[in-house]
Amino acid sequence: MRITVCFTGLKTEPWVQGLRAALPQASVEEWRTGASQADYAVVWAPPQQFLDEQPRLKGIFNIGAGVDALLQRRLPPQALVIRLDDAGMSMQMAEFVCHALIRHFRELDGYEADVKQGKWSYRKPRPRSEMPVGIMGLGVLGERVARAVAQFDFPVLGWNRASRTIPGVRCYAGQAAFSEFLAGTRVLVCLLPLTAETENIMNRETLSRLLPGGYVINVARGAHLVDDDLIALLDSGHLAGAALDVFRTEPLPAQHPFWRHPKITLTPHTSARTLRDESIAQIAGKVLALARGEPIAGVVDVKRGY
Amino acid sequence: MRITVCFTGLKTEPWVQGLRAALPQASVEEWRTGASQADYAVVWAPPQQFLDEQPRLKGIFNIGAGVDALLQRRLPPQALVIRLDDAGMSMQMAEFVCHALIRHFRELDGYEADVKQGKWSYRKPRPRSEMPVGIMGLGVLGERVARAVAQFDFPVLGWNRASRTIPGVRCYAGQAAFSEFLAGTRVLVCLLPLTAETENIMNRETLSRLLPGGYVINVARGAHLVDDDLIALLDSGHLAGAALDVFRTEPLPAQHPFWRHPKITLTPHTSARTLRDESIAQIAGKVLALARGEPIAGVVDVKRGY
Repeated sequence: MRITVCFTGLKTEPWVQGLRAALPQASVEEWRTGASQADYAVVWAPPQQFLDEQPRLKGIFNIGAGVDALLQRRLPPQALVIRLDDAGMSMQMAEFVCHALIRHFRELDGYEADVKQGKWSYRKPRPRSEMPVGIMGLGVLGERVARAVAQFDFPVLGWNRASRTIPGVRCYAGQAAFSEFLAGTRVLVCLLPLTAETENIMNRETLSRLLPGGYVINVARGAHLVDDDLIALLDSGHLAGAALDVFRTEPLPAQHPFWRHPKITLTPHTSARTLRDESIAQIAGKVLALARGEPIAGVVDVKRGY
Repeated sequence: MRITVCFTGLKTEPWVQGLRAALPQASVEEWRTGASQADYAVVWAPPQQFLDEQPRLKGIFNIGAGVDALLQRRLPPQALVIRLDDAGMSMQMAEFVCHALIRHFRELDGYEADVKQGKWSYRKPRPRSEMPVGIMGLGVLGERVARAVAQFDFPVLGWNRASRTIPGVRCYAGQAAFSEFLAGTRVLVCLLPLTAETENIMNRETLSRLLPGGYVINVARGAHLVDDDLIALLDSGHLAGAALDVFRTEPLPAQHPFWRHPKITLTPHTSARTLRDESIAQIAGKVLALARGEPIAGVVDVKRGY
């Protein structure tokens, strides 16, 4: 069995070594133009040329949770597209979102700014009941985040295309319920896959429906958010702030207004990092299952987009 | 039944009103010199004069979790000293400690500093298994914090005077086990009561036993920590940082080196604030129970100190 690793912008070598160790029976190579045809590919932002040269691929493993960029490519039609499921990501998402939420709820940015000026300040505590957290997207990541937020006794709402049931989470399903979900939400967390339907889902119209003083946490994709609409609503005061980890263009261009906006906390796409060892173990397990003809989790519905 | 409210440095009026509403059968007054003698007192840092003028008190309700300052006073010998138990504090502690822990583990201070300089940076993720969190004090607050930290899959150790069992927490008891507890801890969280035994418990000798790159989160009392020893170990590099919410003198004096130390995040004693409505409901319930001759929770063992 042949496995080819093809990354853009990431070191390939540790993955090749790791996959060789995990799958001693396979031949694992880094892609070079004109390389022999592989059965499986492990990819991150692969060039179109690679996919065109590999018509026999049975499976393409994406080493991230979101496959939106990969699905923009022309893919060998018989190949399964397989995303990473979890592999340590959902816990990272849970901690990243809880950190951003607590930081906002407890006004820790404000306290720290006061401390920098040598001020010992007092801020009136806000009731937890007035900080309902609405999570868009209740997949593996969204569900884990919802459970973590519920642990801290915040009211939690969830919105998903298909109907879901999660203890402690008030779940809304489908377009018809979207307005009601937004109207009950003060802190909006985006964990949706990026598809034609979800692109630009956070815009002036939808963000205006959040409870006053709304806060946006985007840990999904930059294209879920209309940048100018967010800024307009922050500047009008309807939104209190935003924690943004993902952007339409990454790295975020130097002249982008997000860099310096006083109500925006930004991080460089670090909310849930691909953990190499966990990911290699997961991919190796799935390669073996596929070779035995067994079903695997994480196969992407290419038409649906996730 | 007479209840007197006596605070230093806090507004009394909302508490008087709240207690009157909760206990319509009682006479609730703010303390004035020469006021009639009360059955119960609700206090925060009461002057010695108040306690001396109230020899008939059956119970003294402290509106905080820590009673160390109150126990420095000369108290009417027959009066029970009753601390607030929980009343929303344990959840605040859980979120405050989780925030500080995640912020350190995920290097979010570092990312934000980079962003301020316009840098889109990358930091190698650290394995969660290398960040064992040790919690000193497994009372109501410590146990809740331990459970919250365990939710994020960090290894959790707990140390307590009396032996405790908490799922997901490796518990150590008593002085004999203290060294072993410290040697297994990278992030040390203090939630101890302040007593003669626990004063200065975080000092050069004990903090040196933490795993290299240790981090200190103090949300108990300033006097648990020897300030100069912390600074020496931060400066030597043995400790990576500290999140301090409590100080020997509060507000922290303007010239104190903690204000400007680059490895210290400080907050103005805000980790778990007394929530008025919850506290009034709890105190009212306990007053009624005492009046009926029933046992109540939160009665302080004055000799033990908590």
